[in-house]
Amino acid sequence: MKLATASLQDTTVHLLVAGCLVLGIGSAATPSLLNSFQQEPRVDAARLLATLERLEAFGGTEAGGTQRLAFSDADIAAREWVAELMETAGLEVSIDGVGNLIGRRAGSDPSLAPIMLGSHIDTVPDGGSYDGQVGSMGAIEVVHTLLDHGLVTQHPLEVVIFVNEEGGKTGSRALIGEVEPDELDVMTASGMTIGEGIRRLGGDPDNLAAVRRPPSSVAGYLELHIEQGAVLYNQGIDIGVVEGIVGIKRWDVTFRGFANHAGTTPMDDRRDALVAAARYIIAVEDIASTLPGRQVATVGRIAASPGAPNVIPGEVRLSLEIRDLSMDRIDDLYQRIHQRAEQIATTSDTTVEFEPFYVTYSAPTDLRIRALVEGAAEDLGLRSLHMPSGAGHDAQSIARLGPVGMIFVPSVDGISHSPQERSEPDAIVAGANVMLLTLLKLDRADGTR
Amino acid sequence: MKLATASLQDTTVHLLVAGCLVLGIGSAATPSLLNSFQQEPRVDAARLLATLERLEAFGGTEAGGTQRLAFSDADIAAREWVAELMETAGLEVSIDGVGNLIGRRAGSDPSLAPIMLGSHIDTVPDGGSYDGQVGSMGAIEVVHTLLDHGLVTQHPLEVVIFVNEEGGKTGSRALIGEVEPDELDVMTASGMTIGEGIRRLGGDPDNLAAVRRPPSSVAGYLELHIEQGAVLYNQGIDIGVVEGIVGIKRWDVTFRGFANHAGTTPMDDRRDALVAAARYIIAVEDIASTLPGRQVATVGRIAASPGAPNVIPGEVRLSLEIRDLSMDRIDDLYQRIHQRAEQIATTSDTTVEFEPFYVTYSAPTDLRIRALVEGAAEDLGLRSLHMPSGAGHDAQSIARLGPVGMIFVPSVDGISHSPQERSEPDAIVAGANVMLLTLLKLDRADGTR
Repeated sequence: MKLATASLQDTTVHLLVAGCLVLGIGSAATPSLLNSFQQEPRVDAARLLATLERLEAFGGTEAGGTQRLAFSDADIAAREWVAELMETAGLEVSIDGVGNLIGRRAGSDPSLAPIMLGSHIDTVPDGGSYDGQVGSMGAIEVVHTLLDHGLVTQHPLEVVIFVNEEGGKTGSRALIGEVEPDELDVMTASGMTIGEGIRRLGGDPDNLAAVRRPPSSVAGYLELHIEQGAVLYNQGIDIGVVEGIVGIKRWDVTFRGFANHAGTTPMDDRRDALVAAARYIIAVEDIASTLPGRQVATVGRIAASPGAPNVIPGEVRLSLEIRDLSMDRIDDLYQRIHQRAEQIATTSDTTVEFEPFYVTYSAPTDLRIRALVEGAAEDLGLRSLHMPSGAGHDAQSIARLGPVGMIFVPSVDGISHSPQERSEPDAIVAGANVMLLTLLKLDRADGTR
Repeated sequence: MKLATASLQDTTVHLLVAGCLVLGIGSAATPSLLNSFQQEPRVDAARLLATLERLEAFGGTEAGGTQRLAFSDADIAAREWVAELMETAGLEVSIDGVGNLIGRRAGSDPSLAPIMLGSHIDTVPDGGSYDGQVGSMGAIEVVHTLLDHGLVTQHPLEVVIFVNEEGGKTGSRALIGEVEPDELDVMTASGMTIGEGIRRLGGDPDNLAAVRRPPSSVAGYLELHIEQGAVLYNQGIDIGVVEGIVGIKRWDVTFRGFANHAGTTPMDDRRDALVAAARYIIAVEDIASTLPGRQVATVGRIAASPGAPNVIPGEVRLSLEIRDLSMDRIDDLYQRIHQRAEQIATTSDTTVEFEPFYVTYSAPTDLRIRALVEGAAEDLGLRSLHMPSGAGHDAQSIARLGPVGMIFVPSVDGISHSPQERSEPDAIVAGANVMLLTLLKLDRADGTR
């Protein structure tokens, strides 16, 4: 990385500045120190917030959120505007074969693999204006800031707006060759299949192999994102240093008893599948809550049949989802839940069956990048916390191409996927500055090895 | 009642016969005792079972049950055949304004109100061949037996095949003026509205007021029916002396928490409406099971929203149904359940709401008729048990017109509303004989008062 003026003293400056902030000296620092401090690049807060507001014009809802379904007219219009924004930020724009919107900027050393910044601008139906969008606008703002300051990184840079994150991370998964042909027929919330949608964005669904990138083709990937939970917000912490994206396993669980007349079957003669399922739901909550660790287990879906007020349920189907950073831990939790479910079935004269139907493997972030993020936050006087990401992100695909890191900013009240989704302007700006400093550190650390 | 030969010694004969059977003497009894025994009328077992088998031709299913939806072609065809059967049994057949098929036989005292025997021949979709049908064929067989033996009761007799029992007890409720005009627009399983169906059977839905009968217009009503539960079968008891049809109250119950991301919301930060609902389901089962009495409480329907494996349920809607012979007891049970639900909501940071949506009042059977049924069973050497009917029956409407009694026979394994519904031939014949003797006792008791 070429720092126009202070590249050699960089480390020293950081330490001094960090010292000043920690000691609370701030503006009382000597002019020379203050000078060094101000030479550190910062994003243009007003411009970043303005782009976020402008983006909301594409699919903004009366409820105060955004509905910008992947492949929809709002998505298309927003992408055209984002492409212009990228060009203004000095990026060369292209669209790859899956429809990812890519902005490129050359580095000083063309032999190096690119550093990638990315996120998405598509939303869930009736969604919010922050999920994906903060990271997308943040990434462009970071590059725009480099342009403003005449800074050129050693690595080439890529800013990627990934396609259809909410509907299955199509864009990022295509880069690792995970989008199989039959997935192209999957219907999305926009009313188009994924294949039709890719074509609409200017991609070529028949030739996704061309999109695939080889392992180690990315020198580093950074993604800024809202937490979508309340851990940071409730504890008053500015920055989440993401330890990884949790793995997920899901099962269909079926309790079978015997459907019978609710009037003619005495209480002690029932094989009520719903009563058994209720004991199981409580067991899931109990096991996940009382074990140490940050695992979560959820029963989100339930259906009792025949499902009439006057019939004892003979069969109940439920979902079970377990998430943790450790796949072993997920399996351990599952074993405990399974065992408890078998006990419940035995004592309630029912049967229980577990059928796995979904797995995504956990994707730990790069240890070195975590340290860089933590250091950047410290440099900026921000409180940070190491934490898993309970939600899935494009970063987990890119982890197969190189080291990844994620930066979380607080979600007010932890609300996400809702028009009430919100992050404070200061929090967004802080997150973008952490990404900027992390990028500069990563570029230098990686370039000089 | 005119007993052709042995009317004066009747009581003595009963006692002797019962004594013989209890002592297991049976066919080893002296010729004179055996003779007296044979003078007691008994139904023609072979004929009764043959009519049941013949009835199954109308709507019998490959699964071994019957689908004879009210107003359907199978219903129409079966009713035509049943009308002929009634005529063969010496009944004068007519159809009233709601479509009830009525067979009448004069008594020796035209000033007396009629004794009514009744049930229904319509079935639920994919139903069995016993529910309603045993009582209908049993009633006709009882009258046929009187004809065979040249017996004429003091009271006029009516055998009523009630319309659309399974779809809302239309026929019996019309007799007490409960079928309001808007109910005629209700769609039934046959694809016809109730009004269209009544017209198809030859009734006049526009003039249901003409069908209504005044209070005390029935001297007594007897209905033979399969238990539809397993109480008799499991205990090896022949006859259920029904104490009444239970009352029913139903509520929609809603737990509200907060829908949130199942990955990003820690276990201790959830307001999971399904976990609260699960605790409530167990509370319902616990309260209904542990209190003394024969009350039943059932949660048969449940829906969690949004209902995705990866979202913590924010709202769960469930049904609650409570049945008991005492409406006060239903209310008491409800108060206990409601209180426990409020506690669960408080401790789980959710809210709960109960909305009543259905009531039917309990209909106790006549104490005197219960004693007659018990006596008739005893005369026949059958074991009997006093029990509530957890299911609804036409008898509960007719209870508004006069004293009613019901006779239950065991359902194999308690299965009903299923092609596997079954009652043993001996059990059916025993039930019909109990109805016959009860009718004779009732006719005599009521005529000589």
